[in-house]
Amino acid sequence: MIRQKISAAPSVRRLPSYLHVIRQVEKEGSEYISGTVIAGELNLEPIQVRKDMAITGIIGKPKKGYPVKALITAIEHFLGWDEVQDAVLVGVGNLGSALMGYTELRSHGLRMVAAFDINPEKAGSPVHGVPVYPVDSMDSAIRDLGVKLALLTVPNTEAQKSADILVGAGITAIWNFTKVKLKVPDEVIVEKEDISSGYAILRVMQRVKKNDIKNELP
Amino acid sequence: MIRQKISAAPSVRRLPSYLHVIRQVEKEGSEYISGTVIAGELNLEPIQVRKDMAITGIIGKPKKGYPVKALITAIEHFLGWDEVQDAVLVGVGNLGSALMGYTELRSHGLRMVAAFDINPEKAGSPVHGVPVYPVDSMDSAIRDLGVKLALLTVPNTEAQKSADILVGAGITAIWNFTKVKLKVPDEVIVEKEDISSGYAILRVMQRVKKNDIKNELP
Repeated sequence: MIRQKISAAPSVRRLPSYLHVIRQVEKEGSEYISGTVIAGELNLEPIQVRKDMAITGIIGKPKKGYPVKALITAIEHFLGWDEVQDAVLVGVGNLGSALMGYTELRSHGLRMVAAFDINPEKAGSPVHGVPVYPVDSMDSAIRDLGVKLALLTVPNTEAQKSADILVGAGITAIWNFTKVKLKVPDEVIVEKEDISSGYAILRVMQRVKKNDIKNELP
Repeated sequence: MIRQKISAAPSVRRLPSYLHVIRQVEKEGSEYISGTVIAGELNLEPIQVRKDMAITGIIGKPKKGYPVKALITAIEHFLGWDEVQDAVLVGVGNLGSALMGYTELRSHGLRMVAAFDINPEKAGSPVHGVPVYPVDSMDSAIRDLGVKLALLTVPNTEAQKSADILVGAGITAIWNFTKVKLKVPDEVIVEKEDISSGYAILRVMQRVKKNDIKNELP
């Protein structure tokens, strides 16, 4: 089942961009949107958009395209963004604080209920309205809250240790913002977010444009 | 040229993870690392790793693998991470502030030299040592600094307007953290970073595991 999903991952990853385009069309008052229009907005092939949309179960009408409201509902439902999910965050540094205040995640149903930090001085003062607790209380707090999702924004050196505590406390899904490939039991899902990858692409594109890199790329 | 690069983008995106694994092996004192070991650490196929490495121009030795130090140098050089590049940031909100303090980007040669915000109260107080200026001075400041790269972390509604000013001031590469597909001249590179995509994947994986989604995925 999971293997199936992995093959669909690039399609799932594109759905949030589609949703953004479709919501704009909705604001403009259109009832239908064609795959070709979405493709044009995002520099993709129309066939790609149609294949990606198919995973949400919604099918466009010939000539008219997709019904806008039904398409938004279908994508949000497929992504689970129409349900609230509680989450905790470990590591209230710069990135952690930013994610705690990131309204977009809230609009996708992610509700941050607690955060933990190794620095006892950070505990006690809520960040963006989210209470911060010392990391010692993490195990019991997560059990009490019954939370299943954790965002991991600790330094790399603390990543595996934190993940072990999270898994022990009942966390089954970790959104990993560290560089570390976590070792977790098979039943735990880890999604690794790597902001450096974006900079890698950008940097290489700049150098390709300047002809610093010529025919080296396949 | 650019079209070539786009086909190599997934390989480029994986290079930072390879670098992390190889640096750990270097710390342990190994002189060589095999593609199979890297693949094992990152749950990839060995053939995939070998193909990705080929774009950096370095080739492994049969039985021994890749020379660790040379491989690190080759990847960093390919990514341009061995050179310092100045950058500005527009939009000193939560995410913007986090990126200004993100030491990992600094270690990849990205040097933030100035930031801009629409709120005049933010101007004047440096954030993580980076001076913040009012957005009115953006055009002239970027020209004076001669900076070519900008990180865009403004609200969606301000994104296109900010991009227009950036391009007018001589910016040729935009790392776009907004949801907006920017309209820019062909010679300007835009890399869009979408944190919601990671949450989309995670959410769908959770639901696949719980069997909420069965055979719907292709």
